[in-house]
Amino acid sequence: MSQRTAVDLNKAYLLLNHGPVTLVSSAAGERRNVMAASWAMPLDFDPPKVAVVIDRSTLTRELVEASGEFVLNIPSLRIAETVLQAGSVSGREGDKLAALEITTSPASAVGAPLVDGCLGWLECRVIPEPENQRKYDLFVAEVVTAWADPAVFSNGRWSFQDGEKRTIHYRAGGHFFATGDGFEV
Amino acid sequence: MSQRTAVDLNKAYLLLNHGPVTLVSSAAGERRNVMAASWAMPLDFDPPKVAVVIDRSTLTRELVEASGEFVLNIPSLRIAETVLQAGSVSGREGDKLAALEITTSPASAVGAPLVDGCLGWLECRVIPEPENQRKYDLFVAEVVTAWADPAVFSNGRWSFQDGEKRTIHYRAGGHFFATGDGFEV
Repeated sequence: MSQRTAVDLNKAYLLLNHGPVTLVSSAAGERRNVMAASWAMPLDFDPPKVAVVIDRSTLTRELVEASGEFVLNIPSLRIAETVLQAGSVSGREGDKLAALEITTSPASAVGAPLVDGCLGWLECRVIPEPENQRKYDLFVAEVVTAWADPAVFSNGRWSFQDGEKRTIHYRAGGHFFATGDGFEV
Repeated sequence: MSQRTAVDLNKAYLLLNHGPVTLVSSAAGERRNVMAASWAMPLDFDPPKVAVVIDRSTLTRELVEASGEFVLNIPSLRIAETVLQAGSVSGREGDKLAALEITTSPASAVGAPLVDGCLGWLECRVIPEPENQRKYDLFVAEVVTAWADPAVFSNGRWSFQDGEKRTIHYRAGGHFFATGDGFEV
């Protein structure tokens, strides 16, 4: 179970603004899944919206289309190996969360779960855009509830101290970057 | 003038995969402009596509709609102050590139210029999606030519040594993160 406090919706985009890798969690009926997604970004401030690419071959796609909901979870460096595995294994081969020993907590506004070990969570409701989904695997969604670990995000601002309790950015294969030093200009 | 070598188009998404801030450069007729954009991401691998949010109030929007082209430039930490200013000043107030002393080089496939002091460049042609543009300020484009500074990107892989010759991630106000240490899992 992760520490978690609510983030004002007009500050929710700040969780995602610096381009961290995400985990997309989803649920429909008895099924649930999680996959890694690097192609996610804010799309609007208030009400906050996001855009995320969810490939048509994935179980996540099926669950998101069935439920109209997902959570964008922002993982910490500490669970980078889980992120890689979540992006490498298909949920069609069995319950991926169980296989990867991923624990979750209930979300407040959507059926998709919040992935423990993350630092931020955006509960999202799909805004149906069938053309985008079909042509580009692109989903647009409104963020309806947002959460962050108060140790690293407060007043709309990330502040990382610990080497492992920071966000990460995906490159390719098993390669990531840690989010580096903050600076001002 | 920046060092620059061609990047294979099937590797172009790797320039953007880790979520760095970008500069969108544009030109139409005698006019040109540059603006900062944090909301940009890859949308497909090969042929490579990108998605980027270009607000309807900007001069960039006008030039991109007129020309159907833009360049996503990936700036280095060294020019972070220019990035901030490019995101704060409107090109409608006069030639922003001249005002900010931004120098450029000609692109090869599009009329928009390549911004010097950057580390990667994606020359893009808009795929018209009037609904996305109107509803979400969202542009989809195909990357037709890509370039990178060979000192920091080769064989599809970023490798940063110098503290200033690395990509950056935008937070808010004058706050950025440097891209941090690479690691493998």
